[in-house]
Amino acid sequence: MTTKTYFTPGPAQLYPTAQAHLQQALELQIPSISHRSRQFQAIYQQCFEALKALLHIPADFAVLFTGSATEIWERIILNCSERGSFHLVNGAFSEKFYEVAAQLKHNPIKQEAALGEGFDPAEVIEVLRLCDTAEIVGLTHNETSAGVSMPEAHLHQIAAACPEKLTFVDMVSSAPYPRLDYGLIDSAYFSVQKGFGLPAGLGVWIVGPRCLAKAQQIAQSGKPMGALTLMDLWKNFEKFQTPATPNVLAIYLLGKVAEDMLRQGIDHIRQDIEQKAKALYDYLGSSSIMQPFVRNEAVRSQTVVVADLDIAQSKIMERLQRKGFVVGTGYKEYKEKHLRIANFPATTWADIENLIKEFKKVE
Amino acid sequence: MTTKTYFTPGPAQLYPTAQAHLQQALELQIPSISHRSRQFQAIYQQCFEALKALLHIPADFAVLFTGSATEIWERIILNCSERGSFHLVNGAFSEKFYEVAAQLKHNPIKQEAALGEGFDPAEVIEVLRLCDTAEIVGLTHNETSAGVSMPEAHLHQIAAACPEKLTFVDMVSSAPYPRLDYGLIDSAYFSVQKGFGLPAGLGVWIVGPRCLAKAQQIAQSGKPMGALTLMDLWKNFEKFQTPATPNVLAIYLLGKVAEDMLRQGIDHIRQDIEQKAKALYDYLGSSSIMQPFVRNEAVRSQTVVVADLDIAQSKIMERLQRKGFVVGTGYKEYKEKHLRIANFPATTWADIENLIKEFKKVE
Repeated sequence: MTTKTYFTPGPAQLYPTAQAHLQQALELQIPSISHRSRQFQAIYQQCFEALKALLHIPADFAVLFTGSATEIWERIILNCSERGSFHLVNGAFSEKFYEVAAQLKHNPIKQEAALGEGFDPAEVIEVLRLCDTAEIVGLTHNETSAGVSMPEAHLHQIAAACPEKLTFVDMVSSAPYPRLDYGLIDSAYFSVQKGFGLPAGLGVWIVGPRCLAKAQQIAQSGKPMGALTLMDLWKNFEKFQTPATPNVLAIYLLGKVAEDMLRQGIDHIRQDIEQKAKALYDYLGSSSIMQPFVRNEAVRSQTVVVADLDIAQSKIMERLQRKGFVVGTGYKEYKEKHLRIANFPATTWADIENLIKEFKKVE
Repeated sequence: MTTKTYFTPGPAQLYPTAQAHLQQALELQIPSISHRSRQFQAIYQQCFEALKALLHIPADFAVLFTGSATEIWERIILNCSERGSFHLVNGAFSEKFYEVAAQLKHNPIKQEAALGEGFDPAEVIEVLRLCDTAEIVGLTHNETSAGVSMPEAHLHQIAAACPEKLTFVDMVSSAPYPRLDYGLIDSAYFSVQKGFGLPAGLGVWIVGPRCLAKAQQIAQSGKPMGALTLMDLWKNFEKFQTPATPNVLAIYLLGKVAEDMLRQGIDHIRQDIEQKAKALYDYLGSSSIMQPFVRNEAVRSQTVVVADLDIAQSKIMERLQRKGFVVGTGYKEYKEKHLRIANFPATTWADIENLIKEFKKVE
């Protein structure tokens, strides 16, 4: 059996050190330790400190753990929005956050862009000014279904224009790449099976004191806020614990991988991602069999590159399969029309070069 | 570093084959596969079939996956109870289900017993007859905090007496031990870090068609039912998928361990648990330093044995520590007064004999 190389946008290729950390975790019997033990508290704290340094999280923010990003969407709506929410929707995942709010009957409003397109922040700000009921703003740094990214400057510009609202950034398929200013952004979240290259089963919720204050205010109204409130999660975080048994192994692995990334340097990781993305987009720009799906260069994702195919997908897939390369197919209606190529930290320069080489052989 | 033996009631000792399956999963690159792939569907199906055979689940039931048992409590209340719920509470974990319902403002009613005590099913049935608003009944097969179990016959007797209500059984810290009659019980659930001896991070929800029908009925009223409804989960289950990215690795491991348990035979596993429990309770009955916390033999847990200490806990802990034996401390106010000893399938006869030998040395 040959080892495959995964270019899929999540679950994705494991981070190069992940397997060794997993072996170490088994030797240390991490899966058997109590989540009420000092040993677990030390694991949580190490993970928190490493993420804080890696992602430039302020000292008064919490890092909370859930089962998935879907659970985070639910917790955000139930804990931080009372009268309504506002969502920028330009693909399946930003739409899902909107749908969660709709499902919870929390009066969400959405501004939409076509798949493959981004938003003009000035226009967004104009619309937002009319949305009195929206107490929270849901922005997506990287829309995984379309390969569209919102530049950090735009995220910050929008957040700065509505300081009375809470701004949440979905960086599920881009963390640790974006450098967010948590003086403007109130909260961001991701899951570990994407950029951190770990097995799925852990959502990570970075959350600031303004979100906690809002949740405390909503609690006073006596409204149902779900089984685990932000207050519960935060109170436990303060002693590096969790209200329910968490995915201890995943927290351990995340802490270790975040530490490895710190050792590499986040600037180095960012540059590396950008260089690999450039190589991919350069190829797409000159290829005779595929082209970049996202036309506007300014909003092209650095971490999930989407190719629009001019030939049958099967022709490419057959060749990649022989090499053991696994790329993502398109999302929903684009299933057979697109390739989605993850460009996470786990993917090496050589991987990208080899992938492009195979594409060229099909031309 | 010496290898420890965990007698803790969850997270617990890994099942003997867990580590080899984890190695195999890494070789097969299971953490990187797509949760929309046929390979994942086959993993889900294998896990479902193995659990169905092991736990005697009827063909028209679904097995759904969540991040934790806490999430299952939330999903049960939001999806299956409209006017109210009824809970038997005799410890911290049965209380938590009640609290989730209270938190969600779903009008829960509880009947309580003191810690260490069980319930008389005839009395429960009498009370239940008066609870018109309760549409669901929450029963706990094994109350982990106190080491009290409700015999299967009592669970079935209560369920049979209120066929108009839906009966849910918490077997978090006893599965796969109890043999439930799903002709009477509508749903049961557990998490994998207890009896199945796997890393934490997966809740397993066994759920029957009457629960689905109830959820469909509630949906028609337009009431908020959370981010993931039972309909979403069930519809995805029918094609062996999940609405959000699940803990793929944990599902793979659970399927493999369930298969190993089937090979051993569930009757053999049950007998083995009962013999080990008998050895522990026999010792407690004759010991000069501890005694069984649960006085009524009929409701003593077979999977979590709680000892009430007559000497300082530290004296015992010091000796166990030297041997690398880790037992659970008591729950909350009993933290230093109790030992909680998990007697899951992963614990061998030799482990139990050696543990008792150490206890005897302290006498």
